[in-house]
Amino acid sequence: MTTPQGFRAGSVGAGLRKKNRKALTVLVSDVPATAAGVYTTNRVQAAPLKLTERSIKAGRRMQAVVANSGNANACTGKQGDADALAMQHQVAELLKISPELVGVCSTGVIGINLPMDLVTKGIDGALKKLAPSPEAGEAFGQAILTTDTIKKDACVSLQVDGRTVILAGAAKGSGMIHPNMATMMGFLCTDAAVTDGALQRLLRDTTERSFNRITVDGDTSTNDCVIAMANGLAGNNPLDEQHPAWPDFAAAFTYVCQSLAKQIARDGEGATKLIEVHVSQAVTETEAAQVAKAIIGSSLVKSAIFGTDANWGRILAAAGYSGVPIDPDTVDIFLGEIQVGEDGMGIPFDEAAAQAYLEKDFVEIHVHLKQGEASATAWGCDLTYDYVRINARYRT
Amino acid sequence: MTTPQGFRAGSVGAGLRKKNRKALTVLVSDVPATAAGVYTTNRVQAAPLKLTERSIKAGRRMQAVVANSGNANACTGKQGDADALAMQHQVAELLKISPELVGVCSTGVIGINLPMDLVTKGIDGALKKLAPSPEAGEAFGQAILTTDTIKKDACVSLQVDGRTVILAGAAKGSGMIHPNMATMMGFLCTDAAVTDGALQRLLRDTTERSFNRITVDGDTSTNDCVIAMANGLAGNNPLDEQHPAWPDFAAAFTYVCQSLAKQIARDGEGATKLIEVHVSQAVTETEAAQVAKAIIGSSLVKSAIFGTDANWGRILAAAGYSGVPIDPDTVDIFLGEIQVGEDGMGIPFDEAAAQAYLEKDFVEIHVHLKQGEASATAWGCDLTYDYVRINARYRT
Repeated sequence: MTTPQGFRAGSVGAGLRKKNRKALTVLVSDVPATAAGVYTTNRVQAAPLKLTERSIKAGRRMQAVVANSGNANACTGKQGDADALAMQHQVAELLKISPELVGVCSTGVIGINLPMDLVTKGIDGALKKLAPSPEAGEAFGQAILTTDTIKKDACVSLQVDGRTVILAGAAKGSGMIHPNMATMMGFLCTDAAVTDGALQRLLRDTTERSFNRITVDGDTSTNDCVIAMANGLAGNNPLDEQHPAWPDFAAAFTYVCQSLAKQIARDGEGATKLIEVHVSQAVTETEAAQVAKAIIGSSLVKSAIFGTDANWGRILAAAGYSGVPIDPDTVDIFLGEIQVGEDGMGIPFDEAAAQAYLEKDFVEIHVHLKQGEASATAWGCDLTYDYVRINARYRT
Repeated sequence: MTTPQGFRAGSVGAGLRKKNRKALTVLVSDVPATAAGVYTTNRVQAAPLKLTERSIKAGRRMQAVVANSGNANACTGKQGDADALAMQHQVAELLKISPELVGVCSTGVIGINLPMDLVTKGIDGALKKLAPSPEAGEAFGQAILTTDTIKKDACVSLQVDGRTVILAGAAKGSGMIHPNMATMMGFLCTDAAVTDGALQRLLRDTTERSFNRITVDGDTSTNDCVIAMANGLAGNNPLDEQHPAWPDFAAAFTYVCQSLAKQIARDGEGATKLIEVHVSQAVTETEAAQVAKAIIGSSLVKSAIFGTDANWGRILAAAGYSGVPIDPDTVDIFLGEIQVGEDGMGIPFDEAAAQAYLEKDFVEIHVHLKQGEASATAWGCDLTYDYVRINARYRT
């Protein structure tokens, strides 16, 4: 997250997590950045999420983000609102910037007030450690994790107006979506100059094709958000949809978001496999996505793939209840390159080859609806004994 | 199923299931009965389901039902349609009745054609065994099971016009909804006289409040159906909504359907507990049901209850993503009689008592939305290691 020009990060344990793992982090841009955000659609919204949404909408600018793991500050009432505001104001005062330029993100257990003495000391400590080093960027990615088993990040560069532009991203999310750990948070930062309107539209559209195309358990959380900051220090002419380099920039942005989304899906709680569902020949992309998400969300499909069982009937049945008016009699189904269903019926296939394919840690399911020309991809993971184990005794 | 007057059943193994377990059964009424049906909303519909729906709609009368387990005759193309039709016609010819009076229901593996030689012999054998005995009724309930661990049935009697009316029901369903085993089937039979319109309306409304209020894994199947037959042999004046005994009959009908629904939920694949979610003080019953079903459908809630973890935040978060415009700040949550959340926030509660409560095999969750006066109940089960085990290697 410190690879793009002008971004520094500082992270500390702050005593918020066991073994004093990194749990509080601040990301700062040298100058105010154009900002955009997308937020959970859950009616239950955490205090920091509401504050950050309000702050970004006020000015479409942001210069710093403070994030903590271990406690989501959700379902915490008026005290929770006050605590999120105190975090924002403390960072603003120490950086001598306006509070509206500071985003606040929390993730962890819900329903318990933040230990503000630890948080206050943690913010002081994190700001003293601000650095543009790769290690500081890596620590940011570590500090936002909860039940995640691996850090999720991605970075790309491209040329815009003869300047090198860098785009980096980091995310957390494991039980997707996992309300108690406040699920997924995504952060994107770039030194490109981007107009605020174009950045918001790009983030919204790209989220639809990346973070909104993954599921681990179908639950959506109180704290989900993705925030993007573009500080312009690369010196390019501000990017928007009319800029000749826009398609390249949008493609890079999509690459980073889809990479983060796939990293989240692969690290789903208890997961042993990343599953990619590609639905094609649909009437619209929206319908293709709806079918793909129904398939990747089916506990029966997920269990079968964990068990390396080429149970194509479950894939067809999930497509059937997706809400999309598919015609079952025209549906073809493939596991990787192995066709297992044609026109809604099973066809003879090599069971041993199918099982061998399903034993891989990356499994592709292709579904051809033969109704139109639109397609969409969704990602998820298998359902395993460990998912149940992790979630059976999470809180206590 | 043979307790109401004039119903006989005959069941055989037919070689359709392992260990020659009962797998083919015929239920026959001495006279044509008023009939009603509700069917899966999945776009993928099994051949027998389509045939039965068409037959009932044609005349609203039915005199026999033939059902088999072991093979769902779903995703089987034109051959599947021909096989379902052959089953209907064979039963009709042997009983010397019109084919439209015969319903056909299949459940089991999908995508494989029925072994019609076994089915044909099975139908012959089952019809030779037709009997009105309790044993014959019990065998009907056994023959329709798949991964179920227990038989599901219920029977009540009441007085209508001075006559004793009997209403009986049997169902199958375990992985609810479990496409590969063709999920749930329900059969209701009564010797009451009921008009066809009233029977269809009652079945539709009651299904909404019983079978449509249960979930084991959220998947909906290709073969789900519930069929009701009323043969009138009790001699009462035909029941409809204007009959003075209608409220009693509707209550008995609801009791039987909810009992069967709860038996299915309790027998969910791998389940160790029946969970009842009661949402009250909603604006409408539809919204209350939507919230209740979101809660009982949450893998996180189900895992937490398996782990006896009083994780109320997950209950609130599921209500938040149900699609109903709840106000999180007015939601109260109880586990049995133990209040764990008030106005969207946690409150101190006796953790040991809550854990002890969650160790029971019947757990009630009460959610008060404080928005209106409507309420609804939904049922489900916990998510356990065994759910994953059962579904990981079902087909192979």
